[in-house]
Amino acid sequence: MHNDIHNYLTKYRDQHLNELTEWLSIPSVSSLSEHKEDTLRGAEWIADSLKKIGMENIKLHPTKGHPVVYADWIHAENKPTVLIYGHYDVQPVDPLHLWETAPFEPTIRDNKIFARGATDDKGQFFMHLKAIEALMNIHGELPVNVKFLIEGEEEIGSVNLPAFVEENQELLASDVILISDTGMQEKGRPAICYGLRGLAGVQIDVKGAKGDLHSGLYGGGVQNALHALVQLLESFRDDNGVIQVKRFYDKVEALSDEEKAAYNALNFSEDGLKEELTVEELVGEEGYTYIERTWVRPTLEINGMWGGFQGEGIKTVLPNEAHAKITCRLVPNQDPDEIVELLTKHVNAHTPPGVTVTVTPFDKGAPYVTPYSHPAIQAAGRSYEKVYGVPTQFIRGGGSIPIVATFDQILQKPIVLMGFGLPGENFHAPNEHFHLENFDQGLRVIANYLSELPQTFSK
Amino acid sequence: MHNDIHNYLTKYRDQHLNELTEWLSIPSVSSLSEHKEDTLRGAEWIADSLKKIGMENIKLHPTKGHPVVYADWIHAENKPTVLIYGHYDVQPVDPLHLWETAPFEPTIRDNKIFARGATDDKGQFFMHLKAIEALMNIHGELPVNVKFLIEGEEEIGSVNLPAFVEENQELLASDVILISDTGMQEKGRPAICYGLRGLAGVQIDVKGAKGDLHSGLYGGGVQNALHALVQLLESFRDDNGVIQVKRFYDKVEALSDEEKAAYNALNFSEDGLKEELTVEELVGEEGYTYIERTWVRPTLEINGMWGGFQGEGIKTVLPNEAHAKITCRLVPNQDPDEIVELLTKHVNAHTPPGVTVTVTPFDKGAPYVTPYSHPAIQAAGRSYEKVYGVPTQFIRGGGSIPIVATFDQILQKPIVLMGFGLPGENFHAPNEHFHLENFDQGLRVIANYLSELPQTFSK
Repeated sequence: MHNDIHNYLTKYRDQHLNELTEWLSIPSVSSLSEHKEDTLRGAEWIADSLKKIGMENIKLHPTKGHPVVYADWIHAENKPTVLIYGHYDVQPVDPLHLWETAPFEPTIRDNKIFARGATDDKGQFFMHLKAIEALMNIHGELPVNVKFLIEGEEEIGSVNLPAFVEENQELLASDVILISDTGMQEKGRPAICYGLRGLAGVQIDVKGAKGDLHSGLYGGGVQNALHALVQLLESFRDDNGVIQVKRFYDKVEALSDEEKAAYNALNFSEDGLKEELTVEELVGEEGYTYIERTWVRPTLEINGMWGGFQGEGIKTVLPNEAHAKITCRLVPNQDPDEIVELLTKHVNAHTPPGVTVTVTPFDKGAPYVTPYSHPAIQAAGRSYEKVYGVPTQFIRGGGSIPIVATFDQILQKPIVLMGFGLPGENFHAPNEHFHLENFDQGLRVIANYLSELPQTFSK
Repeated sequence: MHNDIHNYLTKYRDQHLNELTEWLSIPSVSSLSEHKEDTLRGAEWIADSLKKIGMENIKLHPTKGHPVVYADWIHAENKPTVLIYGHYDVQPVDPLHLWETAPFEPTIRDNKIFARGATDDKGQFFMHLKAIEALMNIHGELPVNVKFLIEGEEEIGSVNLPAFVEENQELLASDVILISDTGMQEKGRPAICYGLRGLAGVQIDVKGAKGDLHSGLYGGGVQNALHALVQLLESFRDDNGVIQVKRFYDKVEALSDEEKAAYNALNFSEDGLKEELTVEELVGEEGYTYIERTWVRPTLEINGMWGGFQGEGIKTVLPNEAHAKITCRLVPNQDPDEIVELLTKHVNAHTPPGVTVTVTPFDKGAPYVTPYSHPAIQAAGRSYEKVYGVPTQFIRGGGSIPIVATFDQILQKPIVLMGFGLPGENFHAPNEHFHLENFDQGLRVIANYLSELPQTFSK
């Protein structure tokens, strides 16, 4: 069978890439209201593609936001059921001028496909469609039962999916949940991520005088909203990168010696990363390695900040408004709601005189860790190894897929995070791209995994 | 003569306001290249108006930037010559959404005219045109010789005017320099400003990794350009508002007891200002009153700041670029060039790890103070008093008119800052406006002053 899959995928590679290009061309930016229709087009494109590969019961379930796409094929009697999750929405594209080619005009250069969503998550999710298409066309049936769940709000915190999952537990019943929305540590080294950080954040809006003031007439006499914001933002962390929000670290577990040793054994190259990012130094919380800081330590980052005059030249204004967006990455036991509460308290306790500050929470996601000894996860490791020819790494990820924690809590089934992204592929940034070698090998990994799963569950 | 002037100005008031409206409609924003043509139109409008009131030798002198407009009338033999300075350029208008009516569609509400430039400086300068028109039409000649010098780069630091003044000292030769580009302390209380703060500033551009990064994958591990900027900006001042730039205060003179007493005698109402600005507190350098902080103490203010995601909702990005514009108001003896050097050294000494920072100086202006006992200045005080009916205050101003220091250094003649603006008229801010009662009274003050000047100089 291995050969049949290989031949099929080789034969249809160009067609598959054409289809991927078509999908990546849809600007389904879920966070921007001007892309509402485009985001719906993303959902419709997926529904249509699911139909073409023989899926059934296809439906766009409306939500308060963007619809959830469901489909299934459940004719593999007495075989396990796999729930495959993905998202059809993508991040905004600004700053647009830094893209070498337009974000929604996919371009292949150097065996990489460049487009917003290339890895996160359209490209990765698309592989599941095509692996299943291959199995279906070769065998006329699938080795397992398959259910698809694709949402359009992952990039805005999966606002409406938890309620959908809660209300549709029967529809979504499965033995294992399979997600490709993470990455490997390095080229040619497959990795399965068994832990993800959570997310909590707020927008901070500072308001000073009733309007902008002349910095000559009032400067030195009246609070400047930008200075107040700077003072407030600076209070969040000390010079060693330690977050100063009271009780922020209370529930964070110390790193075990075993984990420390395992991470050190990965031989992660900080120098390689510095070179890749073109920075002189990697900077973060004192006393932790880069891997520890990005996998198992919580963070607080300013994602955006603005106020006053941003145009060309000089404008001697004393601005009366200033704004910032901050988000925290959370580790196990930290509760996003509690963190938002602590952040709000911190802002209130540190608001400089002469301004008022409003705090607005963003959508949240809980952190997640699963035991990687589970047979369904170990089987995924073997499928990777067969295709890539090297042992699979078991790692944790710094990012957040809020829905993973929700699946864990509501559906209580093992979750396999089968990621094919690579560091440096610019998720959420300009020039996002996906290495096509991982597209090719990933298709084979997925097909192998679905084929092997019945054995794993019958053991 | 007083009555003739009064009657003339009353008769032609509507026509004058129509002309002012026409002028305020020209978006002569000198700092924005998209308004280059509009700024030229501002110069042409003024040249045309000077011609209509009988001025001669009218010329638009080209510079590397916007042209300087010159005109004169020098037929008052053995009478003093007054050089009247003004500027036809205005500040940018953003944030546009905060304007109640469009900035370049002048609107009169509640006896105030609302438009960008209404006080700073189109409205104020326009009064000189109309006062001279009145004198000319009533008497067929002027009581003094008059020279006009109107530039189009005041809002961008008068970049090209010093060279023009230097090269045209003979053309500009005069006995007194008259400028209306400042304000009174309160409604109904005329004031003459005898000191102005200088200006020096820089743009700070922070650059981190080669591109924006995903805050989940890299967050906690790599320097965030916004955090680096916040840290840098926060290092400029301590929590008491004291500027931390080394040697910044070295040349600042302590306030004399006499000055302290004079400022206290003004009975400035901090409560009134708080109410006007709708702020709970007035904030600034510890140990100084509001008047002291805004008149005789130097400042450092962030005028603009930006980086990362500013759109709707959330984008979990770790930004690699951050920007800020800061300007300092300077007091006598502080040298703008030296201050820029100190600011640059401070930035270099406080650059956080993992980023590079570029410092770009803005155009500068020296501070200025003149003895207010000069007869030409005292005469101005009397003219105010005659029209307003109350004694004139002699004050200092927090703002900068860089060219004032230049006039002082090159032309070495007394400078009369005859301001008619009011606090709260939103210079440089949305909803800039000018109280028409000061327009009406100011016209009479100027006409009276020009008429009285010959006596002053013959004394």
